[in-house]
Amino acid sequence: MEEANTRNGPLHADVAVIGGGVIGLGIAGEARRSGRSVALIDPAPASGATFAAAGMLAPVSELHYQEEDLLELMLESSALWPGFERNVTGSSAGRGTGYRTTPTLAVGADAADRRALADLRDVQLAHGLVVESVPLREAREREPLLSPQISCAFDIPGDHQVDPRRLSAAILAALANHQPGDSSWIAEAGDGFAVHDTAAGLLWEDGRVVGTVLGSGAKVLATETVVANGLDAARLNGLPDGLSLPLRPVYGDILRLRVPEHLQPLVTATVRGMVRGVPVYIVPREDGTVVIGATQREDGLSASGGGANPVSAGGVYQLLRDAQVLVPAVAELELLEATARARPGTPDNAPLLGRVEGREGTVPGLIVASGFFRHGVLLTPAAAQICVGLMDGTVDPRWNKFRPDRFSRPLSAARASTGGPSADTPHPLPKDHA
Amino acid sequence: MEEANTRNGPLHADVAVIGGGVIGLGIAGEARRSGRSVALIDPAPASGATFAAAGMLAPVSELHYQEEDLLELMLESSALWPGFERNVTGSSAGRGTGYRTTPTLAVGADAADRRALADLRDVQLAHGLVVESVPLREAREREPLLSPQISCAFDIPGDHQVDPRRLSAAILAALANHQPGDSSWIAEAGDGFAVHDTAAGLLWEDGRVVGTVLGSGAKVLATETVVANGLDAARLNGLPDGLSLPLRPVYGDILRLRVPEHLQPLVTATVRGMVRGVPVYIVPREDGTVVIGATQREDGLSASGGGANPVSAGGVYQLLRDAQVLVPAVAELELLEATARARPGTPDNAPLLGRVEGREGTVPGLIVASGFFRHGVLLTPAAAQICVGLMDGTVDPRWNKFRPDRFSRPLSAARASTGGPSADTPHPLPKDHA
Repeated sequence: MEEANTRNGPLHADVAVIGGGVIGLGIAGEARRSGRSVALIDPAPASGATFAAAGMLAPVSELHYQEEDLLELMLESSALWPGFERNVTGSSAGRGTGYRTTPTLAVGADAADRRALADLRDVQLAHGLVVESVPLREAREREPLLSPQISCAFDIPGDHQVDPRRLSAAILAALANHQPGDSSWIAEAGDGFAVHDTAAGLLWEDGRVVGTVLGSGAKVLATETVVANGLDAARLNGLPDGLSLPLRPVYGDILRLRVPEHLQPLVTATVRGMVRGVPVYIVPREDGTVVIGATQREDGLSASGGGANPVSAGGVYQLLRDAQVLVPAVAELELLEATARARPGTPDNAPLLGRVEGREGTVPGLIVASGFFRHGVLLTPAAAQICVGLMDGTVDPRWNKFRPDRFSRPLSAARASTGGPSADTPHPLPKDHA
Repeated sequence: MEEANTRNGPLHADVAVIGGGVIGLGIAGEARRSGRSVALIDPAPASGATFAAAGMLAPVSELHYQEEDLLELMLESSALWPGFERNVTGSSAGRGTGYRTTPTLAVGADAADRRALADLRDVQLAHGLVVESVPLREAREREPLLSPQISCAFDIPGDHQVDPRRLSAAILAALANHQPGDSSWIAEAGDGFAVHDTAAGLLWEDGRVVGTVLGSGAKVLATETVVANGLDAARLNGLPDGLSLPLRPVYGDILRLRVPEHLQPLVTATVRGMVRGVPVYIVPREDGTVVIGATQREDGLSASGGGANPVSAGGVYQLLRDAQVLVPAVAELELLEATARARPGTPDNAPLLGRVEGREGTVPGLIVASGFFRHGVLLTPAAAQICVGLMDGTVDPRWNKFRPDRFSRPLSAARASTGGPSADTPHPLPKDHA
C-alpha cells in the first residue's frame, strides 16, 4: 500500500474536526476541555462565514414564525454562552472575545414596520421571551443619534453579542499549527493541533469512520470525526451512502465602519431595525467601530465569473440606506470593509447536527455539525456541548429533530456491510489520491 | 562636512522629479524622451490621487463657469494626448494604458438636471466645443441599460478616457528601481531611475536649486528639480522664501465594480450624469469592470483619527444611489473596491505650474507642477510638455497665468542674495538631517 506522503505517518488524535469556522472551533475547544486530543483541519480557519459574522447572540430577535424547534436550541445555547466564553478566555492567555451582555434595541422605521414588530412581539411573549416596549423619547435618550423618525422601539435584554473574529482567534491561539508544506509533523495531536489543509474525504475501517485524508494525501486518524465544514460538508468524499446534506449558499453582505471621535459612541447597544420590511442591524464594538449587516442573497453574483466572495453593490447600497434611516449619522462614518460570505442554509433553516443513522444503526466515529445558516455564532456552545456529549455516549433526545439525515432517503446499509476498507484504502477517495 | 550616508555618494541626474503621481511620471517620461537622465523620487509611486483617478480626459464635460483659462490648458492637453500615449506605449514594451477615444454621453436625471445641462451646453457651444443633443430613444439604443427615467442626453465626442493605473505602471516600467535600504546605488541616473524614498527638502547652491535631499539623508543632484508631489509640495523644506503654495486636500470617494457576464457591457461609453444637481460618472474599462465616481469632500473624516485615506460611508452611498438612478443594473454589480484619496486643490482650481519668480528674477533649477485637482490625468501631457519646454529655455506666455507664485506675497530675494549654501549644507533641512 503506497503512502501518498511516505515522510509523514498519519497524525493520531482522539477527535478530528473538519472545518475551522466558529462551529468547528467551538467543538474543538470543548473536546479539548473534555480531555481529548484534537486535530482541527482547515486550509484557512475562520475565513468563511465566521469572518463576516456580526456575532449577535440573539435568540429573541432571531425568532421566526414556524421555527419554534430552532428557538429551543437557540435559548439553550444562549444560556450556555457565559460559561462557554469563560472557558475560551480562560484558555487563551488573556485574549478577549468582545462578549457583551448589553441589551438589544429593536426599532421600526415606518408604521408598517411598527405593526410587524408588534406582531412578532406577540409571538415572542407567547414563548415566554422578554420584549418590552420603549417610549420613543426614552429610546432617543438611550441612543441620542437614533432618527427622530423611527416609529417604535423595543428593549430586548436577552440578546447579546460577541466578536466572532476575536472569539475564533482566541480559540485558535490555543492550538499548535501545521502547514501542509511542513516535511513532517508531530505524530500525536497532543492537546490540540490546527492542520492547515483541506479534508478530501473520510477514512473508513470495518464500517466505522476512522479519520480523514487531506488534500496533501496525508491522513488524520481519529476515534471521532466531526464534519463541520459548512457548505463544503456536502462535497466531502466518503460520506455514508445515501446521506444527503441539502446545504445551499445564502450570501450576505456586511460592512465594518469606524466611528469618528465626535460621533462616539454612535450607539451604546446593538440596534436592530426593520426598515420598510427589511431587517438591518448596527452592532457597536469596543474598539469604536460598528458592524452593519446583513443582506440575504441567493442571487447569481457568485456564479457569474467573479471572485470567491463577491460583494453586492446593491447589497452595500441597501445596508447604508437602511442604516441611515435608523441612525442618520451613519453617513459620516468611515467605511473600513465591505465583506460577503456564504452561509450554509438548509431547507428548514435548522442545522444538520448529530450522528448519522444507517440501515444497520448509527455510523460509529462520525458526527455532522453543519447548516447553521444565520445562527452559527449563537449556536456554537450548544453544538459543542451536543457533539462532545455524543462522543461521551450521551444522547439528548431534544436534539434528535436536527439529525443530519432527516432529509435523506432511508440510508442504505452502512459501509460495514460492504466490507470495510482499511484506513490505508479510504473509500471512496478523490481520483488524485486513489 | 558629515555625509548622512557616507556609503552613498549623491545620485546625479539631469532632472530630479519629486513626486511619482501621474504628473511627475509624465514629466519624467517626457524629460527622458528629450534625452535627459531622470531620477523620479517617491516612496510609493502612483499610490495617491493617481491610484484613485477614473482617468476621464474630459475638457468639455469638465468646463466650469468662470474657469475659461483652465479650459484653454485642458484643450491643449487633450490635443496632446494621442501623441503622448503613443510615446508611453512605445517605450513600455507593449504595456497598454487603456486609452479609449469613445465619446462620452452626458445625461440628466430630472427636469432641473436637464435645465442645468442645457445651460452648461450653451456655455460649451459658446467656447466652440461640440455637444450634441441626443434623443432619449437613441440614447437608450446606444446604452440599453440606461434608465428610461432620464430626462436628457448629450453626445460629447471630444471627451475620452485612459486607465491611470495602467498608464502609470507603463511609465514606471521604463524606470530602474532603487529602494532606500539598498546599500549603494548607481551614481548616474542613466536613462531613468525611480528612487523609492521621500524628498525631505531642496538643495541650494549659489542661489540655484541643485537637487534634493531624501528622507534617508542621501542626495540627488540635478540641473533641474521639479516639485510635483501634490499636496506634499507645500511641506517641502527649502522652498524659495515667501513662496506660498496654497494647496488643500479635496477628498474623493470612488468605486470599482465588476460587471457580471449577463450584464456586459453595462455601458459602451463613459456616462456622465447630473442627478439632482450632483455629478456622477460611470466609466467602462476594457476588462469588464466599471469605475463609478466621484465625491468631493472637504470634511473632517481624515482629521478624525482614522486611516490615511478614509472612505466615506455617505460618499459610497451617494455614488451607488446616483449611479443607480442612471443605470439601475448597477445594483447587480460586484463591488470590488471603494477607495478615497485627496486631490490637491487650489484657490482657483487651476494648477501651480512653472518656474518661480523671485525678487532677483527666476529661481534657476526649480520648476513647480502641483495643484492639478480633478484634472491631473487630462493635464499630464501639457504639464510634461510645458516643464520640458522650460528646461529647454522655452516659455509659452499662454501659461504664465498658472505660475506657482501667483498666490504669494512679493517674493523676498531669492536665496542667491543671502549667500548660497553649498550642496553639502542644504538650507533649510529638517532637524534630523541638519
